[in-house]
Amino acid sequence: MRNKIKSIKLLIKKSDLDAVLISSVSNIVYLTDYCGFSYFEREAFLVITNKENYLITDGRYSEAVSDILGFELLEVSSTRRLEHIFKYLSEEKKIKKIGIEENNITVTESKKLKKYFRAMPVPDLQNLRIIKDEDEISKIEKACKLGDEAFDFILGKIKKGVTEQELAFEIEFFIKRKGANISFPPIVAFGANSSIPHHNTSDQKLKTNDPVLLDFGVKYQNYCSDMTRTIFFGKADEKFKKMYRTVLNAQQLTIEQLNNLTIAKKQIKASYVDNIARKHITDQGFPTIPHSLGHGIGIEVHEQPRLSPKSKDILKEGMVFSIEPGIYIQGYGGVRIEDLVVLEKNASRLLTHSPKHLIET
Amino acid sequence: MRNKIKSIKLLIKKSDLDAVLISSVSNIVYLTDYCGFSYFEREAFLVITNKENYLITDGRYSEAVSDILGFELLEVSSTRRLEHIFKYLSEEKKIKKIGIEENNITVTESKKLKKYFRAMPVPDLQNLRIIKDEDEISKIEKACKLGDEAFDFILGKIKKGVTEQELAFEIEFFIKRKGANISFPPIVAFGANSSIPHHNTSDQKLKTNDPVLLDFGVKYQNYCSDMTRTIFFGKADEKFKKMYRTVLNAQQLTIEQLNNLTIAKKQIKASYVDNIARKHITDQGFPTIPHSLGHGIGIEVHEQPRLSPKSKDILKEGMVFSIEPGIYIQGYGGVRIEDLVVLEKNASRLLTHSPKHLIET
Repeated sequence: MRNKIKSIKLLIKKSDLDAVLISSVSNIVYLTDYCGFSYFEREAFLVITNKENYLITDGRYSEAVSDILGFELLEVSSTRRLEHIFKYLSEEKKIKKIGIEENNITVTESKKLKKYFRAMPVPDLQNLRIIKDEDEISKIEKACKLGDEAFDFILGKIKKGVTEQELAFEIEFFIKRKGANISFPPIVAFGANSSIPHHNTSDQKLKTNDPVLLDFGVKYQNYCSDMTRTIFFGKADEKFKKMYRTVLNAQQLTIEQLNNLTIAKKQIKASYVDNIARKHITDQGFPTIPHSLGHGIGIEVHEQPRLSPKSKDILKEGMVFSIEPGIYIQGYGGVRIEDLVVLEKNASRLLTHSPKHLIET
Repeated sequence: MRNKIKSIKLLIKKSDLDAVLISSVSNIVYLTDYCGFSYFEREAFLVITNKENYLITDGRYSEAVSDILGFELLEVSSTRRLEHIFKYLSEEKKIKKIGIEENNITVTESKKLKKYFRAMPVPDLQNLRIIKDEDEISKIEKACKLGDEAFDFILGKIKKGVTEQELAFEIEFFIKRKGANISFPPIVAFGANSSIPHHNTSDQKLKTNDPVLLDFGVKYQNYCSDMTRTIFFGKADEKFKKMYRTVLNAQQLTIEQLNNLTIAKKQIKASYVDNIARKHITDQGFPTIPHSLGHGIGIEVHEQPRLSPKSKDILKEGMVFSIEPGIYIQGYGGVRIEDLVVLEKNASRLLTHSPKHLIET
């Protein structure tokens, strides 16, 4: 935690600010290790100055946050509203130039802030969590391991007549019984539903010769995993096998080249990596991937970097991201295979280890 | 759905706008009945003009949203980015003055919008969902009924040594097995933890003479319930009994007066209702409620109106909200009792029906 706060203090100095206002829940979790605030409502802010760290929240959380080290609590109440606290920080603590997360602060909030501060964007706050330290990587790795266990478990539950929702629950309950959480509601798609990349898991029953797409993740000690496997319930025909083979080859080719680039210590453009898989798929006559090839992951399921055709990101040591090519044929079905990778000093390393040969069951 | 869209068209006319941009996921669910978009990331917008309705999203959702009636899909892709779509709407569809949800649009988004539109706040969008129609109330009622069943079920699971987390899982799994979802992660607090209004459910084990605070809700067909009960594991002493009695009386007094005001067809200020319970609690020598007395509920667990000392809301027919007084003594424990109420033409009606006498088990 201390190093993370230190990086904020450096940012304050570098950007010539009096303070930084942290508003996104994920950055609050990152900087405090406290994960009790809602992602759905604004319940807290951090204000970090050169010397001091403040945590602004209300009475519902005062006791729970009292053991966060290094932060002074400024409690919002019906008599001391948020505006009063902003005024106090501006007038008593002489905070004038404050850096904000522009991609998180709403227009309404920005108007309030402007009454008391000169608020300015700090784009670096969007990338605050892009490089993971050892501790973070080890948490993501544990989340991945639990995900692999869940996949192994769920294979035993795939039988004729089971519904998508039932399988999704089995995945969720398995993960929760292990003392972890899901990082997002599991996507389970049977048959033609698998051609919808983000299918809403339904009551559809499994039939013979349905593809089964399973996309799920674990949240372990605030860190997420994410993986996708597509299996075939029955005997796959040549059309499906070709789709599957193409996706798998696209992924393996990408991982191989990523590894080579890492070993060669070359600069790795995220858009270049995206194109390896994308080109392989279209070269085989399939439609292009209708989403990015991959995304960073950490406290959030989707974070920086982005592996997409237009991405400007450069992939570096300590980044953890997904590689998830897919082919989707509307009305027929889809195949996606997704793994997480961490870039290390001399290699890229897979964090998910579930089998990837075509499972026909 | 049609009436809801119509209310937006009226708003456009009334506010002299060319269009309204809907960005909050809850309002998108409200207007389309489609609930597949993430609450964590921006994945879709609605643009509603006098004549047309557009749904902006990306390829992951194109197939899933294709059966939403009355909306034309504008698909974001790597070659047709969001800015291109904004440009198209501005230049081809002549949308210039666009109303936005200022409390939802971020500063970054606002800057993008300003390149193509004159964006202006539409405060009414914050209250779009404040009055519930019959269909919505019946969904909330069904969610409440499932919540009552979950409470009845969980009473049988409260035994020495069980952990808070285990009980929280039992509540969640019960609700999910019934085909519904949780509206938020259940709060289960034993002993002194019950003095933290939003306690993070932990691995603490239940001991004899612990209060047990259970705060949970159901999401049924996109609509939420919310309820809290506090029971006592063992034999409550006079101190706890007095706390319990005071909270229960505060709630009953509030509901009674709310009912009288409804029957008398008086204007009902939310702050006045808040004060009934608040005053009763402080009059008995207890600390004031460290949160609002209540909150509206619907697609979100917390929405308009707010029942708090500073609220300007007026309570009206069709509003559904919680009444949840509480007393919290740090290091000792807390009591909260929460029910949902709907205001009808001639009365207020309770939607949650779990028992409220002090259960000692």
